[in-house]
Amino acid sequence: MTAHYDRIWRKARLATLDPARPGLGVIEDGAVAARDGRLAYVGREDDLTGEAAETIDCGGRWITPGLIDCHTHLVHGGDRAHEFELRLAGATYAEIAAAGGGIVSTVKATRQADEAALVASALPRLDDLLAEGVTTVEVKSGYGLELDTERRMLRAARRLGEQRRVGVVTTFLGAHAFPPELPRQAYVDLVCDTMLPAIAAEGLADAVDAFCDKVALTVEETERVFQAARRAGLPIRVHAEQLGRTGGTQLAARYGALSADHVEYAEEADAVAMAQAGMTAVLLPGAFHMLRETQLPPVEAFRAHGVPMAVSTDLNPGTSPMHSLLLAMNMACVLFRLTVPEAIAGVTREAARALGRLGDIGTLEAGKRCDLAIWSVERLAELPYRMGTNPLHARVFAGA
Amino acid sequence: MTAHYDRIWRKARLATLDPARPGLGVIEDGAVAARDGRLAYVGREDDLTGEAAETIDCGGRWITPGLIDCHTHLVHGGDRAHEFELRLAGATYAEIAAAGGGIVSTVKATRQADEAALVASALPRLDDLLAEGVTTVEVKSGYGLELDTERRMLRAARRLGEQRRVGVVTTFLGAHAFPPELPRQAYVDLVCDTMLPAIAAEGLADAVDAFCDKVALTVEETERVFQAARRAGLPIRVHAEQLGRTGGTQLAARYGALSADHVEYAEEADAVAMAQAGMTAVLLPGAFHMLRETQLPPVEAFRAHGVPMAVSTDLNPGTSPMHSLLLAMNMACVLFRLTVPEAIAGVTREAARALGRLGDIGTLEAGKRCDLAIWSVERLAELPYRMGTNPLHARVFAGA
Ligand SMILES: [Zn+2]
Ligand SMILES: [Zn+2]
Repeated sequence: MTAHYDRIWRKARLATLDPARPGLGVIEDGAVAARDGRLAYVGREDDLTGEAAETIDCGGRWITPGLIDCHTHLVHGGDRAHEFELRLAGATYAEIAAAGGGIVSTVKATRQADEAALVASALPRLDDLLAEGVTTVEVKSGYGLELDTERRMLRAARRLGEQRRVGVVTTFLGAHAFPPELPRQAYVDLVCDTMLPAIAAEGLADAVDAFCDKVALTVEETERVFQAARRAGLPIRVHAEQLGRTGGTQLAARYGALSADHVEYAEEADAVAMAQAGMTAVLLPGAFHMLRETQLPPVEAFRAHGVPMAVSTDLNPGTSPMHSLLLAMNMACVLFRLTVPEAIAGVTREAARALGRLGDIGTLEAGKRCDLAIWSVERLAELPYRMGTNPLHARVFAGA
Repeated sequence: MTAHYDRIWRKARLATLDPARPGLGVIEDGAVAARDGRLAYVGREDDLTGEAAETIDCGGRWITPGLIDCHTHLVHGGDRAHEFELRLAGATYAEIAAAGGGIVSTVKATRQADEAALVASALPRLDDLLAEGVTTVEVKSGYGLELDTERRMLRAARRLGEQRRVGVVTTFLGAHAFPPELPRQAYVDLVCDTMLPAIAAEGLADAVDAFCDKVALTVEETERVFQAARRAGLPIRVHAEQLGRTGGTQLAARYGALSADHVEYAEEADAVAMAQAGMTAVLLPGAFHMLRETQLPPVEAFRAHGVPMAVSTDLNPGTSPMHSLLLAMNMACVLFRLTVPEAIAGVTREAARALGRLGDIGTLEAGKRCDLAIWSVERLAELPYRMGTNPLHARVFAGA
């Protein structure tokens, strides 16, 4: 019996990221085949039998899983370029706040934007990511800090996935900061008792996140958000140990979170807790760079204890206006000393793991969505090595 | 009498960089007009009289001078991605050298490439720069370390300027490193007595550069190169104070050099000497980033003593595989704390000054070549603020 495929990509070198294979799971002289948007064959071309409506000769190029940007704040109103300029000119935080800067300026601009405006402003940013082979992007809310705007941000995020061929994973981050109009506790009550249940009921969020840090929620406040997430049956993630160590990572581990993100100030005990809970560390070198942070995330401890490491842009208007996942890979290697295979796994397999989607995306394995990035490079090391250039040859989402 | 122009750009906001105006020399409600490839009018649109064969409505966009990348090693054979990978995997310098890494690997690959191959491999890199509004690029030799290949590199660089609409400024950098086949002194003799005179006689180099550092030429060796450059009537530049302080900057000042480049380890006395000699400091944050350097260039001293600061990619396969001048601007701001106006001047007016071409390019002033970059941004601060995205609307070289 002959196998029938919709499409075959042949004459390729595959980095499958299949955990059953060593390293990046490389298959030389490889081919992949898709049927109904799913990978139906991944292996050596010689072993592929069957026919396809279309066969694409990759000319010896590399194929990786489509890239996954697992931590972004892609949907937002306004920008913070003026604040960047003021800070470099020596303005103090008080002066920047007086000039309307800081996260409140993004909250204000986002509250003023309707859904169409949020989609329209996010699309060029999304297109920058897609141009580099991204096939799944996570998008957080968190600049509304009241139900209507948080909901609108998440609807806009879902809409992005209708307007482009890309998988969108949404995260409710109402617990990002405190709105100017409410006392802290009243806002935590609102998030836990009203906003999160409403958003969960509408199916707008695939996960819940909270910013546990000295400038944001305390560990106690964060725990209340996690409890509400658990009640709603939603997976948990956390922004933690970014500006200092607060213990948010260990709290998240106790709640079985998917990931802890930033984690520059995490310690070995945090790595141990993350490993035991099966959490992924999401490294965000763009924010590290923009903030001129000097505290390095405990990469050695993550390695030693087997904590998977993902890499993401953290695309946001305040601390990481970075539209390039390749640049995030470069900075993860240069600044955090990730190896090249770690950086590549960090934007594919481990990013899928951070999203709780490893069963569906993140590696080239039969049955997964056929999301491919095809690269005009001799070596995959060229992806994190070069800065400001894009060697993508073609991007494939769901087999097309 | 009515003025006639070839082309008018109207409805624009101009950052002229005209030193007679404060700051970036901004003109709101501005227009520029070109005749015979030169700027014939720069000013307020209301004050523009005359007609043109073509008028372009810029829709309120910003126009800056076309960007100038004043320090690149754009022409070279091979790449060093594998070395990047090995180093991150923990290989020692000896192991990398044994695997064929280091500058000698680039020398080997460049010696093996004919002129057409050098042009073909450089064009995509050049195109990355042009896509961001670069209209003048400097290109150095320095990976031949013998006459034929140095000459071939410079011919390839000149050829780039025929194959694309861009100004190419060439620099002879035979004094970049020592070739494996000759003793040090014999090579310095060769550079000074044979290579430099031959290249000057053929008109292949617009300037002469030398790498004065502990891993390259001594101050004494560098001075011999400068003497030869002076005999040939060529302007001088220097790679200096990059990995440590050697005194190359003050030597260059004594020879009236155009610029000292890298200069992380320069001291206040060097800034004073540079100011007195009218030299420009060329800051190269891409190499700083890739090398994880921590010594910051003395930006405050440069400001205090009035040393102009240019910013460049240093595009090269070893220490700065950076194809984006916008990213160099971002890193100059974030890592070196340049202000936004300094970063913009650093890739326009001050970059022209570093090339000795300020009379012809680098600002929007009548009489200069009509090189424009037209930007889809609200504020020019967006150029260095965002990373990995390109807001260029249009690029104009010599009026077209
Ligand atoms: Zn974030
Ligand atoms: Zn250089």
